[in-house]
Amino acid sequence: MQYAVRGPIVIRAVELEKELAQGANKPFKSVIKANIGDAHAMGQKPITYIRQVISCAANPSLIESGNFPADVVERAKLLLGGCGGGSAGAYSQSTGIDIIRKHVAEYITKRDGFPCDPENVVLSGGASESIRNVLKMFIHHDGSKKVGVMIPIPQYPLYSASTEEFGLGQVGYYLNEEKNWSLEESELERAYQESLKKFDTQVLCVINPGNPTGQVLSRENIETIIKFAHRHNLFLMADEVYQDNVYAEGSKFHSFKKVINEMGAPYNKMELASFHSVSKGYMGECGMRGGYVEFFNLDPEVYVLFKKMISAKLCSTILGQMVMDTVVKPPSPGEPSYDLWLKEKTAVLDSLKQRATLVKEAYGSIEGISCNEVQGAMYAFPRLELPQRAIDKARSLNQTPDFFYAMQLLEATGVCIVPGSGFGQKEGTYHFRLVDSIFFLTHV
Amino acid sequence: MQYAVRGPIVIRAVELEKELAQGANKPFKSVIKANIGDAHAMGQKPITYIRQVISCAANPSLIESGNFPADVVERAKLLLGGCGGGSAGAYSQSTGIDIIRKHVAEYITKRDGFPCDPENVVLSGGASESIRNVLKMFIHHDGSKKVGVMIPIPQYPLYSASTEEFGLGQVGYYLNEEKNWSLEESELERAYQESLKKFDTQVLCVINPGNPTGQVLSRENIETIIKFAHRHNLFLMADEVYQDNVYAEGSKFHSFKKVINEMGAPYNKMELASFHSVSKGYMGECGMRGGYVEFFNLDPEVYVLFKKMISAKLCSTILGQMVMDTVVKPPSPGEPSYDLWLKEKTAVLDSLKQRATLVKEAYGSIEGISCNEVQGAMYAFPRLELPQRAIDKARSLNQTPDFFYAMQLLEATGVCIVPGSGFGQKEGTYHFRLVDSIFFLTHV
Repeated sequence: MQYAVRGPIVIRAVELEKELAQGANKPFKSVIKANIGDAHAMGQKPITYIRQVISCAANPSLIESGNFPADVVERAKLLLGGCGGGSAGAYSQSTGIDIIRKHVAEYITKRDGFPCDPENVVLSGGASESIRNVLKMFIHHDGSKKVGVMIPIPQYPLYSASTEEFGLGQVGYYLNEEKNWSLEESELERAYQESLKKFDTQVLCVINPGNPTGQVLSRENIETIIKFAHRHNLFLMADEVYQDNVYAEGSKFHSFKKVINEMGAPYNKMELASFHSVSKGYMGECGMRGGYVEFFNLDPEVYVLFKKMISAKLCSTILGQMVMDTVVKPPSPGEPSYDLWLKEKTAVLDSLKQRATLVKEAYGSIEGISCNEVQGAMYAFPRLELPQRAIDKARSLNQTPDFFYAMQLLEATGVCIVPGSGFGQKEGTYHFRLVDSIFFLTHV
Repeated sequence: MQYAVRGPIVIRAVELEKELAQGANKPFKSVIKANIGDAHAMGQKPITYIRQVISCAANPSLIESGNFPADVVERAKLLLGGCGGGSAGAYSQSTGIDIIRKHVAEYITKRDGFPCDPENVVLSGGASESIRNVLKMFIHHDGSKKVGVMIPIPQYPLYSASTEEFGLGQVGYYLNEEKNWSLEESELERAYQESLKKFDTQVLCVINPGNPTGQVLSRENIETIIKFAHRHNLFLMADEVYQDNVYAEGSKFHSFKKVINEMGAPYNKMELASFHSVSKGYMGECGMRGGYVEFFNLDPEVYVLFKKMISAKLCSTILGQMVMDTVVKPPSPGEPSYDLWLKEKTAVLDSLKQRATLVKEAYGSIEGISCNEVQGAMYAFPRLELPQRAIDKARSLNQTPDFFYAMQLLEATGVCIVPGSGFGQKEGTYHFRLVDSIFFLTHV
């Protein structure tokens, strides 16, 4: 099992930080970790409203202090009212606090124009936990053919690491770099048909907006994917944690839930799990560990088993659940916190958009590097044209050429990126992923 | 897979709560959930110091407000200094924030009188997450004999549920109810030898103080267990989350780490994982999801794999990690928060002690129920003598007699307990577990 965004390059970056702290002489003064989408670590400030609500919920004596806006106080009281004993220190149900599940359902309903039942929403410690829990439903211990899980290449390594950990079959389908990392039906079909030789393929994972590739799927492309999944009776997993991170002119986020419903029968009877998180978007609250899965058309008996399985983990963090609440139900116009919230949110999204543009410009100007437009999410996945000498040198060190490049870059400049091999790439191509927010440090 | 503390009785209890809220007429006015050790849900108040630190870390503008004691401010600053970008919204390393791992190591060193290396401490979302992560290390996917995991009967269902989920072999050893739920070498040996017919038994789990049984192991008993584990080369897992919850006259908590070290060679070379949590003790911060595992003598190559595995979960909640910090490093004498902290801590522990005593008294006075002394932890596990008619009635409903009793009790009184079958019990005996804190509601 490998988990590249926290792999050897990152371990070396942490060592370098310690060496610098001990006074080592390096060609750089600090390590810039562009390996992971971790906005606050890169200097982004938290949204005031979110942190006010969380501090009041953590320390209810603040509620009566008179130092907080009325809508903050009201929200903290409402959320604590949903907790056992009125305390964020009590367990919630394994599925999460009911009032927050209700707010999530309202958010989804409003976003899509189709109803969402709060009963189908399960809160979790980040989206990662939900994604892993859903994948677990496909584990067999009875020795029958492994269930195949279709995942994009390049992909976010959560998927490859988890399928491997759970003994599931990893079925890679390539995104088309030449067409800005879009999904093509012929490639989906090829990957599916080939997989059947080894696996009983039942699941299709889609990341939209894309990680690490930054594409935003068009509505048409999503329809194609849905039809493909329907034809082969695949369970759809839609990783939509970057739904607020869409920058490109003409790009728009379409949720799978919405498109499935707009397409009507028979597609609106398909099984779907979609995921969201507090870690990305404009809030970047990675450390708070809040996320959810919404199930749609899930077999009720399977759902009972799912809830039984997650009960062994008791519940996700209550304060993380509350952060999710502030994300799906932010202040409304006219409420005292609205103006500041909007200003802060807009500033972050504007800055992310600007950086997404800078990425393409910057890489357009460096010889040997090319990069697609970053339509959404928080990353660029530029392609490297490496000289043969570098490739040979890498091979002589028993390293992949992109790993060699990333390690050299780190040692020379202190910039920590993740080699493309950690996400998967077409044979003979070399890439790396870096977070756009690196431009926050270097260009702002 | 079953998880009794959140099983059908609890689901019915939640339904009853909703029915009561809708005005249903029942023989009780509220449901009392004695199914789970959830102190805050039962009315226990949070420790002021803990919540002050967490609110300042969540909302750093409070640090400069002048409304908090100097030691709270200092701690919040120290902890935020360990976070990426100085924010609780950044990811930490998968192993947790370094300064908190260091404080955990200092706590263990002081507790045991033997050194603890912070590098061996991994923070997690409650102890449950660490326990599950450690059990996962024993999963095979290669079709070889299942690894057997020895777990007590009665046991906390996290163990049975997780071994089943992970496809591990469950090897139950019975605690001796007649000798206050102690562990006997002959029974450990019997269980181990029998298990070898089916499994490659490699792990011994011990819960001390006991859950659901409330015993506190004597130092002598722990030595016996260690010698047994050493003889069979077993990996020891010591669940010590109730280490602050010891009430009985003459009982004392001895950590496995300490006893192994005091015993010297060859025992001090044994592999051990021990667990602690913020959910129990005097703080009862279940909803915060803080915990840790300390490894001792773990094979370095295995540890590398362990760290790789947990990296797919990114990190546990930062605020939960910080709660752990306040638990392992509370205010010191002379610091401004010390007196209040000590007063609050003592009040909770005194009250828990009083309730532990009440349990035995109360059950001593009810015909058909007997109960061992509750030496520690937070539960009683009384034995029921059920009339044959009740047993027959249960059988006719295809229920276990203890499940039948628990459901009848719930419907008649609104008190929610967990039947003994959820934890395991000797054939032909019937028990139930309830949290002591029920006496908080009924006797205070």
